[in-house]
Amino acid sequence: MKINEKLLERMVEEALSETPVPPRREKRLEEAYVVQSKKFDVKTDSLSEKSRAAHQELLDGYVKALNEVSAQLDTADREGANPNNSAFRNLKIDEAHNLNAAFLHGLFFDNVGSPSSRVTVDSLAYMRLARDWGDFNKWQKDFIACGMSARNGWVVTCYSTFLKRYINVVVDLHCLNVPFGCIPIIVVDCWEHTYYADYLKDRKSYIYAMMRELNWSKIEERVEKAERIAKVVMS
Amino acid sequence: MKINEKLLERMVEEALSETPVPPRREKRLEEAYVVQSKKFDVKTDSLSEKSRAAHQELLDGYVKALNEVSAQLDTADREGANPNNSAFRNLKIDEAHNLNAAFLHGLFFDNVGSPSSRVTVDSLAYMRLARDWGDFNKWQKDFIACGMSARNGWVVTCYSTFLKRYINVVVDLHCLNVPFGCIPIIVVDCWEHTYYADYLKDRKSYIYAMMRELNWSKIEERVEKAERIAKVVMS
Amino acid sequence: MKINEKLLERMVEEALSETPVPPRREKRLEEAYVVQSKKFDVKTDSLSEKSRAAHQELLDGYVKALNEVSAQLDTADREGANPNNSAFRNLKIDEAHNLNAAFLHGLFFDNVGSPSSRVTVDSLAYMRLARDWGDFNKWQKDFIACGMSARNGWVVTCYSTFLKRYINVVVDLHCLNVPFGCIPIIVVDCWEHTYYADYLKDRKSYIYAMMRELNWSKIEERVEKAERIAKVVMS
Amino acid sequence: MKINEKLLERMVEEALSETPVPPRREKRLEEAYVVQSKKFDVKTDSLSEKSRAAHQELLDGYVKALNEVSAQLDTADREGANPNNSAFRNLKIDEAHNLNAAFLHGLFFDNVGSPSSRVTVDSLAYMRLARDWGDFNKWQKDFIACGMSARNGWVVTCYSTFLKRYINVVVDLHCLNVPFGCIPIIVVDCWEHTYYADYLKDRKSYIYAMMRELNWSKIEERVEKAERIAKVVMS
Repeated sequence: MKINEKLLERMVEEALSETPVPPRREKRLEEAYVVQSKKFDVKTDSLSEKSRAAHQELLDGYVKALNEVSAQLDTADREGANPNNSAFRNLKIDEAHNLNAAFLHGLFFDNVGSPSSRVTVDSLAYMRLARDWGDFNKWQKDFIACGMSARNGWVVTCYSTFLKRYINVVVDLHCLNVPFGCIPIIVVDCWEHTYYADYLKDRKSYIYAMMRELNWSKIEERVEKAERIAKVVMS
Repeated sequence: MKINEKLLERMVEEALSETPVPPRREKRLEEAYVVQSKKFDVKTDSLSEKSRAAHQELLDGYVKALNEVSAQLDTADREGANPNNSAFRNLKIDEAHNLNAAFLHGLFFDNVGSPSSRVTVDSLAYMRLARDWGDFNKWQKDFIACGMSARNGWVVTCYSTFLKRYINVVVDLHCLNVPFGCIPIIVVDCWEHTYYADYLKDRKSYIYAMMRELNWSKIEERVEKAERIAKVVMS
Repeated sequence: MKINEKLLERMVEEALSETPVPPRREKRLEEAYVVQSKKFDVKTDSLSEKSRAAHQELLDGYVKALNEVSAQLDTADREGANPNNSAFRNLKIDEAHNLNAAFLHGLFFDNVGSPSSRVTVDSLAYMRLARDWGDFNKWQKDFIACGMSARNGWVVTCYSTFLKRYINVVVDLHCLNVPFGCIPIIVVDCWEHTYYADYLKDRKSYIYAMMRELNWSKIEERVEKAERIAKVVMS
Repeated sequence: MKINEKLLERMVEEALSETPVPPRREKRLEEAYVVQSKKFDVKTDSLSEKSRAAHQELLDGYVKALNEVSAQLDTADREGANPNNSAFRNLKIDEAHNLNAAFLHGLFFDNVGSPSSRVTVDSLAYMRLARDWGDFNKWQKDFIACGMSARNGWVVTCYSTFLKRYINVVVDLHCLNVPFGCIPIIVVDCWEHTYYADYLKDRKSYIYAMMRELNWSKIEERVEKAERIAKVVMS
């Protein structure tokens, strides 16, 4: 079947028509996604109780916003979409913002809070980080440098399906400077809301604290999946 | 093995030290990635020869820039990385910019230029787009609306490993508003450099032209891989 | 009179109230601004007729979008404004985008297209640029470098009321990386829509062409006003 | 005197030349600006001592970064400036970032911390805000809504030399979504670093607190200057 010529023709006609066409009622899509929030169930002395509670509320807010944006997108006017003054465009931008906010927070909560966790030299995580940065310490230094560089944002170690290797990414806010095709493995939130109540402007101590309590068994699970994805990508 | 406490301690000491520590010479990493450019070998009447030639030069420039940024990152100072005045930070931002520019252009060149290609109702591509947008025409309309919305950027249909479904993404420039965990399937460049020489400000006609010559067998290959990735994600 | 405590109290009460408060009808503001478009009436061989005509249409579109955004802002819900999912927020962002687009285009059209115009060494423009860049040629080189640096955007020489001197600014798109308190003096559009139809990717030749036909008497008028503003700022 | 044709010709020649031209040594500019930091000398119960001390350090950091960027710009290579991989471009972006950070913080510190200050109905500030928003309360509501909308950023009431009226601006980070030609009058910092240590995620209470202690005599001074600037603009 050829791409729908009828649809295209009708849209062109409408666009050229002098008479305004009445807006067609958009059927509500059945598949609007609904996302559930994660719980920030972290046993740690690195972040105060009040700080973690506020963070949990933040995440719940992002998930709620994401679901609202998703519902609004279902019926948003697509005919008039344009770069300058378009509710549809704005909802798509907010979708990316809240999508990353919701999922990165979930991944972050899941991979910290394990002060007794250890990385072992025979783990996949250790081997891949050592392979792609030269040695494990270089990954650490690069990760810290990326975390220090974010302009209120995130540092994420991820598998790049483009480069076919692991890379560290510096994110500003939630969705600026993000490479496509990246599967997150290690995620540390570097927004000021994460550390200001406990560390004020000492972001470096906060990042060290998070790195000391990375959950390496959770990370190993992610690397295992990433390696299976890598095999698909390279097949 | 625990995360390198020695390194962390030394860095904390240095940070607290009154005496400035001489910068340590960074060994050049062996693994700096080198990326090859794609050829824009498109048989099409939708874009003029001069327009395609200029586009090829643009892509070559992005690949060159990406490799240069990668090389510079090898030896960039990570100790002083910060959000406000840091060559390291700027290189990481440029890495994301050129990485997306290089790979999205490659994916774009590869999935257009096939005016005789047809999408069949029993293809995976058709079925997945129909499933995730309600019907195939809705995907078309959403894709067009996203393309019209980009503020000089891209429209990308991709598989979201977060939402476990296909979504359309509106990218501004090359790396703004990008969700993590997205595997690109269908890519149309909506920068003005793509269509201005041939269509001036009529972006809609350009998008229609590109959609009429999508290479559905190339897209099918990508969906097949995405489906295998989906299985890993959901396992 | 103290800042309206009553209003603040009522807003706090509403925020804390269990019972949802019915949205109050916002009176339409009388002062919604209405902006008129400028005409791109340029006698030049540097840009083709079709290119200038398309540019004029673009500007008209921005002015239309700006007026629409302004009208929508009049009645937008301010109570629920938030950073993540808020029509009000999105309208404010679009206001900045279209405001700069409309006015920078107007300033640009007004200050090019005069191939016979000359800058004289005793003009205020010449003297101020020479003063703030060391010499006039350095301003030229800096201006060209800024134009080459924009990631689809603008190069603007302006008087900074913060720094109390003239500076060159690199703008991405229309409103990214803009310093506050800047009065534009010389404006060259570096979006691809400006030069692609005539110069393809050769932005440098386009910038040279624009610089050769800067309207220095128009620029002088702007500098004269900027100097009077400078006196106010420094008083 | 015509714009320097010699320089342009030489640059074109160099650009076209097969033989790479040795980089010319750039003379250090004499006029590199040096900016002094402001002191956050605020008598207030709305922000804790530790929070204000951290904020002062932040501002000092921005001023230091701005001066460093300015010094680096003096000798940065302008010949190779480009949108994708250019130290010059990155310094210009950082200049805008730190310039706004430094000056907006200064303006903010100066216009809060006066809990006993009152706005009088016969002040210029009151009259202009009432004129441009319909009434003073509407300005308040709009200002609060803008503050709530910033994605880690600023709310700024400013005089727009484009629109010839006062407007509220929502800034993300320090330099995103900023209209040109705006003279700041009332500035409230809405980065999380401002309120998180004292208010956690309750930004609304923080904004109310700041509005209750706006320094209306400082604001009046700014409006008086803005009015004189308005006269120049409209002359």
